[in-house]
Amino acid sequence: MYYIGIDVGGTNLVAGLVDTGAHLVSRMSIPADRTKDADGLIQDMIGLTVRLCEEGETRIDRQYDIKAIGIGIPGQVDNRAGTIVKTVNMPLSNTNIRAAFQTVWGAPVFLGNDANCAALGEYWAGAARGCDPAVMVTLGTGVGGGMVSGGRLFDGFAGSGMEVGHMITHAGGRLCTCGNRGCWEQYGSATALIHQTIEAMESHPDSLLWQICGGDLKKVEGRTAFDAASQGDAVASGVLERYREHVAVGLISLVNMLQPEIICIGGGISNASDEMLMNPLRKLVLAGSYDKGNHTRITRATLGNDAGIIGAALLCRSI
Amino acid sequence: MYYIGIDVGGTNLVAGLVDTGAHLVSRMSIPADRTKDADGLIQDMIGLTVRLCEEGETRIDRQYDIKAIGIGIPGQVDNRAGTIVKTVNMPLSNTNIRAAFQTVWGAPVFLGNDANCAALGEYWAGAARGCDPAVMVTLGTGVGGGMVSGGRLFDGFAGSGMEVGHMITHAGGRLCTCGNRGCWEQYGSATALIHQTIEAMESHPDSLLWQICGGDLKKVEGRTAFDAASQGDAVASGVLERYREHVAVGLISLVNMLQPEIICIGGGISNASDEMLMNPLRKLVLAGSYDKGNHTRITRATLGNDAGIIGAALLCRSI
Repeated sequence: MYYIGIDVGGTNLVAGLVDTGAHLVSRMSIPADRTKDADGLIQDMIGLTVRLCEEGETRIDRQYDIKAIGIGIPGQVDNRAGTIVKTVNMPLSNTNIRAAFQTVWGAPVFLGNDANCAALGEYWAGAARGCDPAVMVTLGTGVGGGMVSGGRLFDGFAGSGMEVGHMITHAGGRLCTCGNRGCWEQYGSATALIHQTIEAMESHPDSLLWQICGGDLKKVEGRTAFDAASQGDAVASGVLERYREHVAVGLISLVNMLQPEIICIGGGISNASDEMLMNPLRKLVLAGSYDKGNHTRITRATLGNDAGIIGAALLCRSI
Repeated sequence: MYYIGIDVGGTNLVAGLVDTGAHLVSRMSIPADRTKDADGLIQDMIGLTVRLCEEGETRIDRQYDIKAIGIGIPGQVDNRAGTIVKTVNMPLSNTNIRAAFQTVWGAPVFLGNDANCAALGEYWAGAARGCDPAVMVTLGTGVGGGMVSGGRLFDGFAGSGMEVGHMITHAGGRLCTCGNRGCWEQYGSATALIHQTIEAMESHPDSLLWQICGGDLKKVEGRTAFDAASQGDAVASGVLERYREHVAVGLISLVNMLQPEIICIGGGISNASDEMLMNPLRKLVLAGSYDKGNHTRITRATLGNDAGIIGAALLCRSI
């Protein structure tokens, strides 16, 4: 018996076959065709799931061996109705994706937000196995999050809970895309780190940061400050020190509100070295935690992009 | 069949008899004797529960009719061990209160934090009945909170979750008693409003605020600004406008993180008129909510001090 998980991304559509032990046993990927409309994209996903069963490394009888299908969407879903409510970079808003799948598939179809699916993946198969509650935070283009509590996804009364990037940490601060000022993702995301790096470069023309990005501000990435700091650049070290404080402020709020047993950190930023990211973050969060006797473990997520596939596949167990 | 709930406060010890329909059918109260040590206070509580059954309005056979006892503590408890871990203003830290009760009582004894008990009370019998998840926020000396999700108390892996007052909303801001800077309770509590009122008075010697507190800054209370604003004082209105923004910032974070079906607001501040508090707060929170299609209801808590008694009594159903 297997589960199919689909990770819908702006670049690729990825489907994976997950066994009952939460192992990803096979995967298949196609580019997300940006010229297609919702119907075309969904037909691509359906075709991908069929080929995954019939042509993948583990070939199975798709009508008998698939227990459930789960789809992780970069946006807001209504799992009860089977619809995608809103996506930002893909033309999938207001689509009944479940109905489309069920013209081909007999297995039940579950929908989840991609950050929630990543949290579920880390909970079922990654760094957060056995932890309750388990929180996942993704430091990427934005700041995403998800929580599993009592083995179930915690996502509020209408599926939009754990939008941790839109917790307000700096009241009155930077304007966010959501319309509020001072959202955590304006300070703690990779995008924010890039802004902070550029600002520091503009006031420090001698910094090594300029060499690392070839003198071109457009080439500044999330890793640029980490690279320069590891080569001893004091400006970059200062940027990172402030950035870690911004990240820690949100993590402290999560700890004091949710007291999770673990917070797994994923996203591009989480690839930085322990010395430059996780170790100093742990110290800051520990110092700011309200309950000094019971510490939330802060750790790197371990599944990378697979978390979203595994979590989507196991939505049926978790909602 | 009844439950006993005990609300342990710095001023009074209150015990109540709660029926299976979550109604408070009888209550009894004694002053908390500040000269007594932990053992003396606990003996007072035990005596109170015995008298509640034998002498209260509803007399019952205390060994047969009591299903469970719950105790709400202003501090941190370890329900598994039956101990009070830490209290701030009472000498009850590191006390096995369950063991003491069980020398007299056969019924099981449950422990909870007082803010969590208030949330449970509003969930079982007050404004949050039937709401899932339900969040309670208390704007008092500090800012307290609790959440009920799936009918159970959500309090983290070690019982200290939902310390919402120590969510950081103003990074780098006012120093909090917890050691962090910018905790919500430094901006949104009644204590914070008093500070904000005094600051405004110091720069506006003509404000009506001075008359209302008889020219004595020590007489400024949480309600002072509300009283002055309702008499048309512009300075007080300005204080309240900023205060509501501070409260809203934390509520928006709660909505975006937890997406509760309801947030009940209790504590002294919640007694202000709808026009001065709840209506403008609702507008601010609505505008700041990430999910514009599904709104968290923001409402006044309805049970007042009874919430803590009812919630404590029903801890056995909720943890």
